[in-house]
This record gives sequence, C-alpha cells and structure tokens, in this order.
Amino acid sequence: MDYNITAIDGGICAAAGFKAAGVHAGFRKNKQKLDLALIVADDVCSAAGVYTTNKVFAAPVGVTRAHLANGKARAVICNSGNANTCNTDGYDKANASCDMLAKALGIDADDIIVASTGVIGVPLPIEPIERGIPMLIDALDYGIEASNNAACAIMTTDTKKKEYAYELTVGGKTVHLGGICKGSGMIRPNMATMLCFITTDAAISSEMLQSALSEVIKDTFNMVSVDGDTSTNDMVTVMASGKAGNAQITADGEDFKAFKAGLAAICKRLAMSIASDGEGATKLLECRVRNFTDKDGARTLAKSVISSSLVKTAMFGADANWGRILCALGYAGVDIDTDKIDVKFKSSAGEILVCENGRGVDFSEEIAKSILVRRHLTIDVDMKSGDTDATAWGCDLSYEYVRINGDYRS
Amino acid sequence: MDYNITAIDGGICAAAGFKAAGVHAGFRKNKQKLDLALIVADDVCSAAGVYTTNKVFAAPVGVTRAHLANGKARAVICNSGNANTCNTDGYDKANASCDMLAKALGIDADDIIVASTGVIGVPLPIEPIERGIPMLIDALDYGIEASNNAACAIMTTDTKKKEYAYELTVGGKTVHLGGICKGSGMIRPNMATMLCFITTDAAISSEMLQSALSEVIKDTFNMVSVDGDTSTNDMVTVMASGKAGNAQITADGEDFKAFKAGLAAICKRLAMSIASDGEGATKLLECRVRNFTDKDGARTLAKSVISSSLVKTAMFGADANWGRILCALGYAGVDIDTDKIDVKFKSSAGEILVCENGRGVDFSEEIAKSILVRRHLTIDVDMKSGDTDATAWGCDLSYEYVRINGDYRS
Repeated sequence: MDYNITAIDGGICAAAGFKAAGVHAGFRKNKQKLDLALIVADDVCSAAGVYTTNKVFAAPVGVTRAHLANGKARAVICNSGNANTCNTDGYDKANASCDMLAKALGIDADDIIVASTGVIGVPLPIEPIERGIPMLIDALDYGIEASNNAACAIMTTDTKKKEYAYELTVGGKTVHLGGICKGSGMIRPNMATMLCFITTDAAISSEMLQSALSEVIKDTFNMVSVDGDTSTNDMVTVMASGKAGNAQITADGEDFKAFKAGLAAICKRLAMSIASDGEGATKLLECRVRNFTDKDGARTLAKSVISSSLVKTAMFGADANWGRILCALGYAGVDIDTDKIDVKFKSSAGEILVCENGRGVDFSEEIAKSILVRRHLTIDVDMKSGDTDATAWGCDLSYEYVRINGDYRS
Repeated sequence: MDYNITAIDGGICAAAGFKAAGVHAGFRKNKQKLDLALIVADDVCSAAGVYTTNKVFAAPVGVTRAHLANGKARAVICNSGNANTCNTDGYDKANASCDMLAKALGIDADDIIVASTGVIGVPLPIEPIERGIPMLIDALDYGIEASNNAACAIMTTDTKKKEYAYELTVGGKTVHLGGICKGSGMIRPNMATMLCFITTDAAISSEMLQSALSEVIKDTFNMVSVDGDTSTNDMVTVMASGKAGNAQITADGEDFKAFKAGLAAICKRLAMSIASDGEGATKLLECRVRNFTDKDGARTLAKSVISSSLVKTAMFGADANWGRILCALGYAGVDIDTDKIDVKFKSSAGEILVCENGRGVDFSEEIAKSILVRRHLTIDVDMKSGDTDATAWGCDLSYEYVRINGDYRS
C-alpha cells in the first residue's frame, strides 16, 4: 500500500499546533552552543513514549514515564550537557524543572516530558533551567527556525542536527509529522536508543498512538547500532495535536495503517540519520537480511552484522572481508543454514557478489574497493530460506570513534 | 584449598612425553614467520576439546570434533595465515592434512587434532602442508625451544607468543601442565575464543579430562573479550600423556580437584595473555564483580563491562568515566539493584572509589588519572547483594585496533 508519504521542509513545527525554541542556558561553557530545548503544543495532546531498557536509567526517564502514563502531554523540555543519571538528587531536579516550566507556561506539570543527555554522574545544575525557561518562552515560535534551534539544543557529540518532516493523507486530510532527534554514541538496538521528539497534527487516541509507536520502533530505532552500548537516557516520544482535522483514529483500520506508515517513514529517516552520524562515522552501513524464515531472526541477524566491530572496521578500511559477515551471522544465536548464504556489497558505485552458498566466489578486489569507498554501503545478505526481510543501520568504526570516546569528559 | 601450583619455565614440552616443532612452511610470504606447528605425544593420550559455538565454523573444527569423539589423540597440527573456513574444499583439505601427517608419523589419522587460523574464505593451499610435514618431523624435539617455535607458528596478529607451564602435586606425584595459545582479534566470551593447545603428563581418563576442561573454561577463556566477535575457528584441546605416574584419575575426588585447580591456573594465565595482547591493546582490563547473588549473573555483568566499547575507550584515555560502567551493568540483562553498586578503579598505583550506592562520589581526577594510566587496570564492582564473585578480562580499544582491522587482508 502506497500512502503518498512525502518529505517536506521543517521539523517539529511542520505539524500544526506546535511551537519550539532552543537557547544557550549555561549547561555548556561554549556560549554558541544551544543547550536547552522546548516544544510546546497549543493544547494538551495525545502522547506516547518508549524508553531505555537499561536497568540504570536517568531520573528524567522515570519522571517522563510517570507523566505519560495517562497518555497526555503538552510540552517537552530537554537539556544537553548533563544526563542527570546516577545522581542522588536526580528526581528532585527533574521534578523541579517540570514545576518551574509548568508555572511559567500555566500548564500542568504532569503534562511535561522532561529529558536530559550528556555525562552521567555529575549533579544537574538547576540554575541553567531557571535562567533558560524565561528565555525559551520568549523565543517560542511556530517557524522552521524555532525547530532548528530545538534540534541544535539537544545535540551532544552529534555533528549534524537531525530534523525531518513528512506529510501524507489520513482519512481525507493532510497530516504532518515532524521530528528532531539526537544520538551519536551509546547507541544499541535494544530500545529507543537516543532522544527523539516527534510531533504530529493527526487526531489519534493515546492508545493507538502508543500502539503505533511501539510497533514502528521495532523496525526503525531498534535496528540502529553505533557502538553496542544501550544508553541510560534513551526515549522517543510522540505528541499528536489533532489539528489536521481528520476523524480521530481510535481503532485499527485504514486510517491507522496510513498514520503508522507515516510514523514509520519519519522514524526510519531519523534512525538512519543517527546511524550515519555515529561517533566518528565516515560511512552509513545498511545490512539487509532477505528471505529468512522469521522476522525476529532476520532482525537479529541484521543487527549482529551491523554491530560487529570487525565488520565495522573492515568497512572503514573499504576491505571486502566478507568472512567477518558470515562470522557475525554465525554467532547471532539464530538457527541458520550456513550453506545457503549469499552476500553482496552494494553502493552507488555498483554491486558485487562476494559469497555464494556460504563459500567465497572469485571477485575483483578492485571493483569491490570502488564500491566500498562510498559513504552509504549496503551489505545484502540473502538467506534463501524464507520470505521475511529485515534491515539494520549502523556505521563504520574509525580512529575518530576512539578519539571521541577516549577523552569524552575532558 | 592450596594445591601449591607453581609457574615453571617452558610450554607444551614441560609435560613429559610431548615433542613439538614450528616451521615456515609457506602460508605466509614472510619467510621469517613460522606458520605451521606440530605437537606429537610419545603415545596415544586421553584428550578433550571445546570448540566455537559459532554456527559458521571452520572445517578443521568439524574434523577435530569428530577425531576427539573417542577421547583420544596423539598429535596436533596447526597452521596460521589461513582459517580454512567457508571454502568448498575445506573438509577435503583438513582431512588430507591429517592423512599426510598420519602416514609420515605412522599414527592413526583419527588421533590428530587439526586447526587453522587466519583469513576466512580463501582456499587453504595444500602445498605448504606437504612441504611442511617432513620439515616439522625433522625438527621435532622435547626442549623449550621446540615449544617456543610451535607457539610462534600459531600466531597471527598476536604481538607476543603465549606459552606457560605449571607444576603441582597430584596423588603424590609431580604433574606438569603446559600450554600455548594464540588469539588477538575475533575474541568473545562465548566459548573457547581462540586456539589453545594444552599438554599434561597427568594420568586422567578422557571423561574426567573433558569434565575438567568444560568446567574450567567457564571462568577462564569464556571470561575474555577483546572485540565481541566469536571466531569461527576457536578451540581449546588438552592431551594427557599419563607419564607423571599418578594413579589415573577416573572419578571426582581430591586428585581430580587438584588437577582441575592446575588446569584452571594455566587456562587463566593463557586467557589473560590473550586479553592483554588484544588487537591494538595498550592495557589489560580486569573487571571483578563481587558479592552478587549468583555466579551466572556475576559472569554476565563482568563480561558486559569488559565488552563495552565506551568503557574500553575510556580506559584507553585513562578517563575515570564510571557512568559508562554503570550503564554497561544496567544493560547486561541481569536483575540488579542499581542503588547498591560501588565502583573502584585499582592498579599498581593505588585505588580510588568513584561510585557508591549507584551515585557518584567526589574524587580527585588527578589521582584517578594516575591510577588509570597504568598497564593493568582492575574495575572493582561491589554489588552488595550476595556472596558470589566473577572476573572477566579484556583490553582497551585503541586507534591501533582500528588500524589493524581496517586493513587486515592487505
């Protein structure tokens, strides 16, 4: 089914009914770096969230989970530069942030999504929040620039801001979806895997919104791996303002399927942007596992390939070392027929078969190199044992990854 | 119980009844690099083995598993430079190697352990085997130098040869254990994780030898991680000649416990040597998880810390970024009480508490740095929830790892 999903300009403000802002509040020393973001809906929205599965989770994750329990939200506040994790006063600070923002906006503190990202174990300073809230409210706006600023304010080691927007038709009305996200290190396919805030003007109940999100992340955010570390702070939230004017989606059906396709499109785009901007990455890697017996197995296999340090370094070096791909498929813990596996490398420069039926084939190293030096590589794995596919995204492992993480706090 | 286990000089020839040799047979271009190793026992030995759990496994792994099914072996032949994995003629070549060696030595081909290590997916050339076997037989000797040569011949990206020997008293007799191993990349705590050949002159039945080995690897080789990739070629084998003259161990009891302690000592030493010589490693990392509720959980937690790319890069940078340790404990998939965790860093320069009850404590970054710049670091994690401990070994993640693996085949 083709839902005519179209990429459009803008981010979180592309959906009707959402203002945004980003300011430098003082979490970072560099005054040019925005470090506090705000998203505010005109009215209370249906809302849904998914969170890190790490047993060590940030205080704001705990607070947001409680706030979204009723499926309603109106605003998002998010700082970069400090994770507010493993601190004695973490919950106090996260709650205090919500209280201050609620008072300043005249809204209910329970309708606030709060998030933090940055270093773990350093107490969150509350002054930048106090100082930042009036600045944010002053800067709130419906325009593209406001979304840009919010997207910039949540960045940590990200080298590019990540914001995308899509439109599609749902129940005869044009519906918009916008999203910003951040994430570069501590990324693993286990749950939300970074911070992502999505807005939409679709009218949809909280239950159906949560259902759509929980299903969509399985093939998008959960299929991304940068370094195999599942962060303590991950979350993806969606707020739906209902301003598109479609008949509210309250059950499965054509409208729900269309909305879910739109949500999948923006989540996939945002997830790929995270993989492609992985810490130190020089290349976006995509692993397609095709024709497998079952979906979960296909996902596990694709993620195993994309997470292998040896595959990642080989791709960094443009080395067609396909044995490492078979090795990663073999230890994934999935029942596979190793004698059926075909492997191809693909990029904009062409494609080349390097392994057939689990055995090496003669191929031109020169042509392989010319394919592997490109910035977007696809590792195509044909399992020839079924009709189910899965795709995972990751990045290569470079010297720069080691540099960034060997000295993160300095 | 203290079994008076003492480190002694020598490797696989420290145990009575074993000759060894290592030669340059031509798998490698560099004529200075020995690339074919042989170990031969004076008589048929009790033998045991453990193998990779990777579903893609090398032909020699399959052949050796079959040969050891009867618990007997007399010789080991092992080449470096080619893994003999994912090749159409892999089994033919592995069997041909055994047949040639059996004929030359006048022994049964079924009593031969065959192993290969190197690049995957390139057909194994048989000529170096043909050429090498007479050279090996000519060089066979009981001395230390013979063991040295065999240890060198199985090295790939290893920077140091790995051979150790121990002695202890079993049933009133002095028993010797010697071992050589190789392993530097493609190392993960899942099974044998590299090539390791152990000899002993203890008298022990095949069944008890297998039982001892299977138990001992859980806390030694399986607790090592270099890069999270489980190789296709891993194996650990032990041959016991019985020449020490102790009453043969055929059941559990004091003698078996003593032998197992000796086997554990040499396996731990060999396993640590692999971690410490991990590809590109500048530091040996040891993670001790103490006072946990159960052994399996403690092992999983220790391995999760030692396997985290973010912990490994922080240790490379001597950065006391303990939040990454809590993060790795949190995503290990083990039920833990995060509010009880204490973390200390230790080295020969001292120790420092950085996290207490899951929260950061004030500590001197300067003192932490002085501890973390050393070559052997211990991450001490006190779970304060039981009385079970586990230790895992790994290494830091450096620029050199990326360089080695970005261009492995070139």
